[in-house]
Amino acid sequence: MKPLRVAILGVTGAVGQEFLALIGERKFPFSELKLLASGRSAGKKVKFQGKDYSIEEARADSFKDVDLVLSSAGGSISKKLAPEAVKAGALVVDNTSAFRMDPEVPLVIPEINPEDIAKHKGIIANPNCSTIIMLVPLFPIHRLAKIKRIVAATYQAASGAGAQAMAELDRQSREILEGKKPTKEVFPHQIAFNLFSHNSAIADGGYCEEEIKMMKETKKIFHAPDIQVVATTVRVPVFRAHSEALFVELEKKVTLDEIYQALHKGDGVRVVDDRDNNYFPMPIEATGRDEVLVGRIREDHSVANGICLFVSGDQLRKGAALNAIQIAEIWAKSR
Amino acid sequence: MKPLRVAILGVTGAVGQEFLALIGERKFPFSELKLLASGRSAGKKVKFQGKDYSIEEARADSFKDVDLVLSSAGGSISKKLAPEAVKAGALVVDNTSAFRMDPEVPLVIPEINPEDIAKHKGIIANPNCSTIIMLVPLFPIHRLAKIKRIVAATYQAASGAGAQAMAELDRQSREILEGKKPTKEVFPHQIAFNLFSHNSAIADGGYCEEEIKMMKETKKIFHAPDIQVVATTVRVPVFRAHSEALFVELEKKVTLDEIYQALHKGDGVRVVDDRDNNYFPMPIEATGRDEVLVGRIREDHSVANGICLFVSGDQLRKGAALNAIQIAEIWAKSR
Repeated sequence: MKPLRVAILGVTGAVGQEFLALIGERKFPFSELKLLASGRSAGKKVKFQGKDYSIEEARADSFKDVDLVLSSAGGSISKKLAPEAVKAGALVVDNTSAFRMDPEVPLVIPEINPEDIAKHKGIIANPNCSTIIMLVPLFPIHRLAKIKRIVAATYQAASGAGAQAMAELDRQSREILEGKKPTKEVFPHQIAFNLFSHNSAIADGGYCEEEIKMMKETKKIFHAPDIQVVATTVRVPVFRAHSEALFVELEKKVTLDEIYQALHKGDGVRVVDDRDNNYFPMPIEATGRDEVLVGRIREDHSVANGICLFVSGDQLRKGAALNAIQIAEIWAKSR
Repeated sequence: MKPLRVAILGVTGAVGQEFLALIGERKFPFSELKLLASGRSAGKKVKFQGKDYSIEEARADSFKDVDLVLSSAGGSISKKLAPEAVKAGALVVDNTSAFRMDPEVPLVIPEINPEDIAKHKGIIANPNCSTIIMLVPLFPIHRLAKIKRIVAATYQAASGAGAQAMAELDRQSREILEGKKPTKEVFPHQIAFNLFSHNSAIADGGYCEEEIKMMKETKKIFHAPDIQVVATTVRVPVFRAHSEALFVELEKKVTLDEIYQALHKGDGVRVVDDRDNNYFPMPIEATGRDEVLVGRIREDHSVANGICLFVSGDQLRKGAALNAIQIAEIWAKSR
């Protein structure tokens, strides 16, 4: 791969920090690195691989001589700046929801639809974190017996709301353990020792945006307009990995052995399913890992061809930064 | 109601303590109160309503001159002692799983099947906490349009594993916030800032006992042998209220308005469903409350006649001690 001139947009956020960590860890080939954030952070220094980088304010003219933009700066900023980066000749891998459902923009999980990368017109969208963590382990099953319907209940970490939300979980936990009233800055409700319906806006029909993303993005990524998805998304007092209870209905009967085999061979999946020791996917074990953990694999006799699963995946890695880097790697190889 | 000679079996446990609190709060009419626990606690003093009570060791001969036993001392102890209490002439309301599926023993949620109380032969079983918290809000819907299938994912508090498990969540949280390795005494896995598949034994088909209870008890309580139930049960770092994401399929189409009305009128249910303010059931708000909170009420378009809900209920109150006391109250009135 030819070294790239890379810009990270939103480098001070939780996902931005993970972009940096993964560029180092995966030896992503870059010749120049530009760190972009809001004006508030401009001028701050970041040490990376022994070198000092100065954060610059992200502006429309920030993308001259940039080949690749890894973007995670919020939907409204992406909407404004991604087209500018494209005009300047860069490819943007965007982690926000700004372009995901745009028919001109590929929405990609590399383990599932890498072929869509080639269809880009300058922007490739990274799916929602809960969607990625749900679909990576479901895809090997979908290939085996075509999924008709997915019922998902999520257990989402604070990290999905950013670094400040993780700090809020830490701070509120201390306050409560000290007998103080917990202070709220990021989330609308207490997150420590509590849980609440995902804090995205409620839209038509009572579904929140997070749920609607899971429902719509699945159809686009799987190229399966008829697949039925329903989700209830919930924030839990966990720092950084999302978990999900999944109940799927398949087109045809397959054995549990076939499911196990498909999952064992599945890309990006790690089976953790030790019934004797009651040992299954847990967010603390998914944290820092590239693979999505999958377990509690069992037949659901309450419906025809039903399968239940429980999954945990690192929200900041596979759920966000890692998936984007993997997209960039595939794109970079094909240049 | 004639004052009763009451024994609390397992008074030192989390549910036992709640029995005491509720007897006070509800002015449950008692003439004598016997506090029973394991030999370890024998001799310890408990102050209740200004009077000192001494805990006695629970033995086969502890039930002479007792009218009512409120029991929550673990399945094996119930199996041994409940028949002795019945022989001595007492009614046992048993909160363990020992007798729940015994066809001779009524399994009762007073809001749903109070008529089964009269069929007792000395023992009335209190359902599993997750079952109660699921069925109280589902019953008004079941009456409206008959439920065919329930898909449940639970978010279960530490309290379900007792007072020591609640202390473990507190202790581990402190340890982690202090940068120490969390110590494990009660749960097989770290509970603080983590979650894991319910720690009951995994049985046939990969379901854990907690899930099997929800699946079997529902049929018995609803007198609906054909109702289909599938559950994935999960422990979360919350102190004492359980939450559940529920996806139900009804026999016939009903409007959301009809569902709301049925829930508003439903016994033991409190609707918390404020979409504009993203305000729905939360365990910290269910804690200490008698009602099960229900919200996120919406149509599920992924299946015919589908409805989604999210519920939270106090595991120690309606999920255990309160339900048992309500059974005892109905029984006592009919004596």
